[in-house]
Amino acid sequence: MRTTVGWQAGPAGAELHQVPLERRDLRPDDVAVRVDYCGVCHSDLHALRRDGRDTSLVPGHEFTGVVTEVGSGVTRFAAGDAVAVGNIVDSCGECPMCERGQENFCHEFPTLTYDGTDRHDGSTTLGGYSREYVVREGFTYPLPAGLDPAAAAPLLCAGITVWEPLRALGVGPDSRVAVAGLGGLGHLAVKLAVALGAETTVLSRSADKAEDARRLGAHDLIVSTDERQLAAARDRFDVVLDTIAVPHDLGPYLKLVALDGTLGVVGYLGPVTVPMMDLLAGRKRLGSAGSGGRPATAEMLAFCAEHDVTADIELLPSKQVNEALERLGRNDVRYRFVLDLSDLS
Amino acid sequence: MRTTVGWQAGPAGAELHQVPLERRDLRPDDVAVRVDYCGVCHSDLHALRRDGRDTSLVPGHEFTGVVTEVGSGVTRFAAGDAVAVGNIVDSCGECPMCERGQENFCHEFPTLTYDGTDRHDGSTTLGGYSREYVVREGFTYPLPAGLDPAAAAPLLCAGITVWEPLRALGVGPDSRVAVAGLGGLGHLAVKLAVALGAETTVLSRSADKAEDARRLGAHDLIVSTDERQLAAARDRFDVVLDTIAVPHDLGPYLKLVALDGTLGVVGYLGPVTVPMMDLLAGRKRLGSAGSGGRPATAEMLAFCAEHDVTADIELLPSKQVNEALERLGRNDVRYRFVLDLSDLS
Repeated sequence: MRTTVGWQAGPAGAELHQVPLERRDLRPDDVAVRVDYCGVCHSDLHALRRDGRDTSLVPGHEFTGVVTEVGSGVTRFAAGDAVAVGNIVDSCGECPMCERGQENFCHEFPTLTYDGTDRHDGSTTLGGYSREYVVREGFTYPLPAGLDPAAAAPLLCAGITVWEPLRALGVGPDSRVAVAGLGGLGHLAVKLAVALGAETTVLSRSADKAEDARRLGAHDLIVSTDERQLAAARDRFDVVLDTIAVPHDLGPYLKLVALDGTLGVVGYLGPVTVPMMDLLAGRKRLGSAGSGGRPATAEMLAFCAEHDVTADIELLPSKQVNEALERLGRNDVRYRFVLDLSDLS
Repeated sequence: MRTTVGWQAGPAGAELHQVPLERRDLRPDDVAVRVDYCGVCHSDLHALRRDGRDTSLVPGHEFTGVVTEVGSGVTRFAAGDAVAVGNIVDSCGECPMCERGQENFCHEFPTLTYDGTDRHDGSTTLGGYSREYVVREGFTYPLPAGLDPAAAAPLLCAGITVWEPLRALGVGPDSRVAVAGLGGLGHLAVKLAVALGAETTVLSRSADKAEDARRLGAHDLIVSTDERQLAAARDRFDVVLDTIAVPHDLGPYLKLVALDGTLGVVGYLGPVTVPMMDLLAGRKRLGSAGSGGRPATAEMLAFCAEHDVTADIELLPSKQVNEALERLGRNDVRYRFVLDLSDLS
């Protein structure tokens, strides 16, 4: 076993605390990654607050770092390579979804980066809030040279989660896209939609974010509590990407979707009640997406390097992880916390 | 005013009874249609059973007949023309949906063929369970010569309701389509999907309908209560068209939808609760559709004439309307009742 250091959950109600962690010895297709930067995702908060969660939980599933060692069979990486890892680290590799490069939808369920079950030794995976991670090379991505490694970390979960639906829905220069919710996912959705050439609008509960929206590249902002503005935008958007993390009424957002367009929900993933008549009137569709397959993740990283897209982040030393989580819980972040793990040694 | 005869609701609980009805004098753009055949749609049953429904209700919104008289400005029809009328008879004509030929989604709401409000005189529309109907020529369709007028009547509601989503979802020779529910809508969905060249499967609660499915042209039948068959068909269909008229769990049907495919719900249109994770896993979409715009309706009629598609009907004299409704209520019909109105005079 290898040893490293990380931030672990502990008993319910307790803050994350620094602990020594074990990592597996490298298998032939493993790489060891020194984790430099790890994004703080809403999923981390959910996992930590979940009833009955494991006290050994170590969150973190969007990180960048540098390869320190490679297994005997590794061909794509060498020590010193800058790399990135997202929220899945393995999959069955044989089901129809894996065969199509959609390992995120693996029929046998992908191995999650934390709180997942390793397919070989059955151990529970411990995440990227730690100084080292051991991962199959096949689920490790080269980090393109042009991308700032701290600001790129959130691309690996927030980024790919909005990239996949934007691409699957064919967003491009002829598209009109609206993004609801301007948080970690939302601000990247705006940047990516803009970079894809789409006319991009932010939907926000207040006009306060108009300046931010413009700075992110959005062409317009609609105040989602203003009935007049909503009515004027009826049936306007080919894609409405809903990144709001809490339960909410989808009705007003569906009304903004164009004929044969799609409301893609990627924020709150609990059950929702949909008035079918809201889908019927305009032949609209409701969809969702989450995470991404390996080909799409690699494609997104290349696209982001080409278009200079990274997250707007607030970088904190990892010892401030509890502050980051607490502030994230009340949406006090523009737009993603990233932990600098170099304070762990 | 013109006078005719029709089948009217009367007090709650009462059967439809034959009454004299008034029709408006022809406006310049009206045609008078002698109604020969009118399909019996599930909507009729819903309307009749609805709390607080109007005692003057006359159902019927899929009918064929012959033009008997035309208004002074009518250009497209003359007395003697075989025509068809569906479930909308007017719309605002100016909103973005009307401009796109999707009058069924008119922002001002289309005028329904019965229980609608006439845009000119404010009267309540009375439907096609009657010997004559007066309708704007713009919402009247020439009935192609090759189509049997009785078996074609259901195309105007059941047919177009499944045609629009099949077309909007791009169903063609490369598509795999499943149809859940083999009733009025479902059997036409099978015929149309087959005629569009799609590999078409029927989803049914029992294997009893295998012979019927085959006769309708379907290539396969999956028993939707057989977990093994469902598991084998996971992620298989680009489009699953759900024509089931009663509330039911969408989960099993969503599992059959392919990556980036769509579950189109056209049967039961009440609110449904959707586990977003069922949409997420496979980036699936949930959609709906109902009725159709004028261009799509004309296109469908031409397609049906070319491919010899009509409904499988049970033709009854209109005086058996109450029997038809009662049997429809317990799904005792293969697959659509059509009333022969020639017994009204």
